[in-house]
Amino acid sequence: MIKMGLMNRSRREIRQLIKNSKITICVVGLGRVGLPTASIFADAGALVLGADINEAIVNQVNGGECPLSDEPKLAKLVRQNVKKGNLKATTNVAKAVAHADVIVVCVPTPVDEHKVPNYSAVKDACKEIAKTLNKGSLVILESTVGPGTVESMVVPLLERQSLLRACRDFGVASCPERADPGRMVENLFSVPRIIGGIDSRSAAVASWLYETAFGVDVVKVSSPKTANAVKLTENLFRDVNIALANEFALLYEKLNIDTVEVIEACATKYNFTPHFPGAGVGGPCLPQNSYYLIVEGIKVGNIPYLVRLAREINDRMPDHVVTLVGEALNEIGKTVKSSKIAVLGVAYKPGVHDLQLTPTRKVVQKLVEMGAKISIYDPMFRNEQVFGTKVADTLEDAVAGVDCVTIVTAHGEFRDLDVRELSRLCSKPAALVDARNTVKPQAAKKNGFAFRGVGRT
Amino acid sequence: MIKMGLMNRSRREIRQLIKNSKITICVVGLGRVGLPTASIFADAGALVLGADINEAIVNQVNGGECPLSDEPKLAKLVRQNVKKGNLKATTNVAKAVAHADVIVVCVPTPVDEHKVPNYSAVKDACKEIAKTLNKGSLVILESTVGPGTVESMVVPLLERQSLLRACRDFGVASCPERADPGRMVENLFSVPRIIGGIDSRSAAVASWLYETAFGVDVVKVSSPKTANAVKLTENLFRDVNIALANEFALLYEKLNIDTVEVIEACATKYNFTPHFPGAGVGGPCLPQNSYYLIVEGIKVGNIPYLVRLAREINDRMPDHVVTLVGEALNEIGKTVKSSKIAVLGVAYKPGVHDLQLTPTRKVVQKLVEMGAKISIYDPMFRNEQVFGTKVADTLEDAVAGVDCVTIVTAHGEFRDLDVRELSRLCSKPAALVDARNTVKPQAAKKNGFAFRGVGRT
Repeated sequence: MIKMGLMNRSRREIRQLIKNSKITICVVGLGRVGLPTASIFADAGALVLGADINEAIVNQVNGGECPLSDEPKLAKLVRQNVKKGNLKATTNVAKAVAHADVIVVCVPTPVDEHKVPNYSAVKDACKEIAKTLNKGSLVILESTVGPGTVESMVVPLLERQSLLRACRDFGVASCPERADPGRMVENLFSVPRIIGGIDSRSAAVASWLYETAFGVDVVKVSSPKTANAVKLTENLFRDVNIALANEFALLYEKLNIDTVEVIEACATKYNFTPHFPGAGVGGPCLPQNSYYLIVEGIKVGNIPYLVRLAREINDRMPDHVVTLVGEALNEIGKTVKSSKIAVLGVAYKPGVHDLQLTPTRKVVQKLVEMGAKISIYDPMFRNEQVFGTKVADTLEDAVAGVDCVTIVTAHGEFRDLDVRELSRLCSKPAALVDARNTVKPQAAKKNGFAFRGVGRT
Repeated sequence: MIKMGLMNRSRREIRQLIKNSKITICVVGLGRVGLPTASIFADAGALVLGADINEAIVNQVNGGECPLSDEPKLAKLVRQNVKKGNLKATTNVAKAVAHADVIVVCVPTPVDEHKVPNYSAVKDACKEIAKTLNKGSLVILESTVGPGTVESMVVPLLERQSLLRACRDFGVASCPERADPGRMVENLFSVPRIIGGIDSRSAAVASWLYETAFGVDVVKVSSPKTANAVKLTENLFRDVNIALANEFALLYEKLNIDTVEVIEACATKYNFTPHFPGAGVGGPCLPQNSYYLIVEGIKVGNIPYLVRLAREINDRMPDHVVTLVGEALNEIGKTVKSSKIAVLGVAYKPGVHDLQLTPTRKVVQKLVEMGAKISIYDPMFRNEQVFGTKVADTLEDAVAGVDCVTIVTAHGEFRDLDVRELSRLCSKPAALVDARNTVKPQAAKKNGFAFRGVGRT
């Protein structure tokens, strides 16, 4: 801990304190956001205490091992900084906070089955932090929350048990993570950070910490709620635009127009940003972020309809994939019931070992309900048990003798798919359903497949 | 006319035919799209006959004058090519077509008061063209239409009276215009063109014509309906994203978050494209394009809900501006009724002399209905009669002694607005409503205005 306190230091002093390992940072939550964040702060020189309720993760980290297999450059950062003594993990948040100048909260904020945000992990973290929060320290929230949550929930929780007063005794800032799973380290070192403080001092100190440790630009905004609005706005932009692509796909299928051809042509115009249709949207952010905003909208009587409708459209895409499977099988005189169907891709997006809200779950569930015999292949999940099925060791194993191949995740391996070879391996006749625009429709048809693709002709 | 026919010529021959003024192009419709198109074809060497039902326009063009005052570089192109004899205008479509190797249709396709596309100008043009269509010629549609309209309406109309057969006797292609009013010439020379032909020959010949005359890249797509889908998809992307910005604005106003600050911060992320909230969307394209797609969706039982909702959101923004005017006046104890209100900006967007579907019309109508006394200033419409009011000669004249200033179009002149000077000219106290994020809220408030802005705090 810094003897003279953190909050009254200058930019230059903070830079020196980090460099000389004179600053202690407690990162709460060692998941996909927290662990890279903790490792990079440690790598910049800070003494980092990573706290997580998951003992297995804590033990792995303390052993210099990285629990995430799909984040390039992370394993090395963890190993080196644990070895150097700059990064330690613990299950005891309060004890770690007692030593900390800065507390960075990176816990998950999922939505429940009614689509209501569940902030219990943030609340629990705040309560633990409040027990031992030091005067003159700074609490930073990286978790995604609805605008206003820091002001109305985080600050009161921190004040209640600590008997300290925000602004006067400690600082609070929002710095929502903006990095992309599978590219966390790269993004943390390059994407500018958005920082909103409860006062200008909190914002300034938080900015200097991130500028120094991550070497990134910082955009200071008026308040924590503005920072949280930024995070939601940028993610909802993506969710709404993917929904729009899906809406075009559903219509263009009926008009016999190829949506991918359309979108690629649109992309030649200077003010168009391409998004592509698919099996839906998964992961820890996009399928949930809308609800953080909707719930705030409901409170003030102003529901963002467009955002809600977009979410609905994306949520229904897995059903559409199942419909296409049924249609393609029907074309070759087969039913889903008792057909062998290979599902390619379970990860929610290419290149990650992550099943969070993956559209594949719904696709597999429905196909199983309808009586299909499912095989699964995903290069990120080889030989693991997923959705009650052991993932095949190779693509060849998964597709051998099947009546239908369904591509649900656009892993690189599926982009180079040799449809002629695929057709040799499948039953004859066979169906091919491409939910991710990885296959050329003409090539699939030429090789004898009954073909369907989301938005394809 | 080309003696040996156009459709069997090579790319090189077509290039030569244009250069040596051996090709005759009839452009039907000399509006904002047709006139620049005709002028550029003429400038490249083609003999161009421009046909329009508006005699005044025809006379102006034949006199070497340009009827459009807001299109940079167009006046010179018209003057030079009329003088050179390469550009002539006529009211007789059939007579012009009788001489033409290529017919380019650039007539408007508005929607009626029930939001149903009105293709009567395209139909009338096709019927006229069919009367004298030459064997071996090519008809190109630039007008925006729903996907399938060329195949199901244009081709049959051309075949019926001509007794010619499409593909065999003449070619047809869609090449939807993609240029931005106020930047037509610049865009026509730079934005790639999308071309879909009813056969590969039509697509090839159309491509060579545009490549040669405009020097742009051409993206050939599978069919006219695909080309028309591209045009609608790229415009609806903008309409939906503006609606999304407006939806954020309406919510963030209630949450006391500044939408412009949010969007500018979002724009620092690599995959975000900024769009800004405002008074709604006007012009010949965006407010109408959705309905061309919706009507095709209705036919196949698949309404694009997201597109329709987005349109609704944008259509209701003028009402929101009026609400903000009422709120701002209320703050200073005044009513809309009997207040003097200066409306800045009537053009549907900055820098154009164009009132098509401008949101200002609705704003002014509603304010007048509510009993306000309106003054108007717009640098593009000085001293013209607009919405029953004579537009002031200067901004100073319009705002002198008013109770409220309302900025509805973001003309450059309003971006540099000196709010201190403005406050000196207005009544005291006065309200300032900014629907286009041209004014800094803090500066407005500091100078004594009761301030409201779309999405602002």
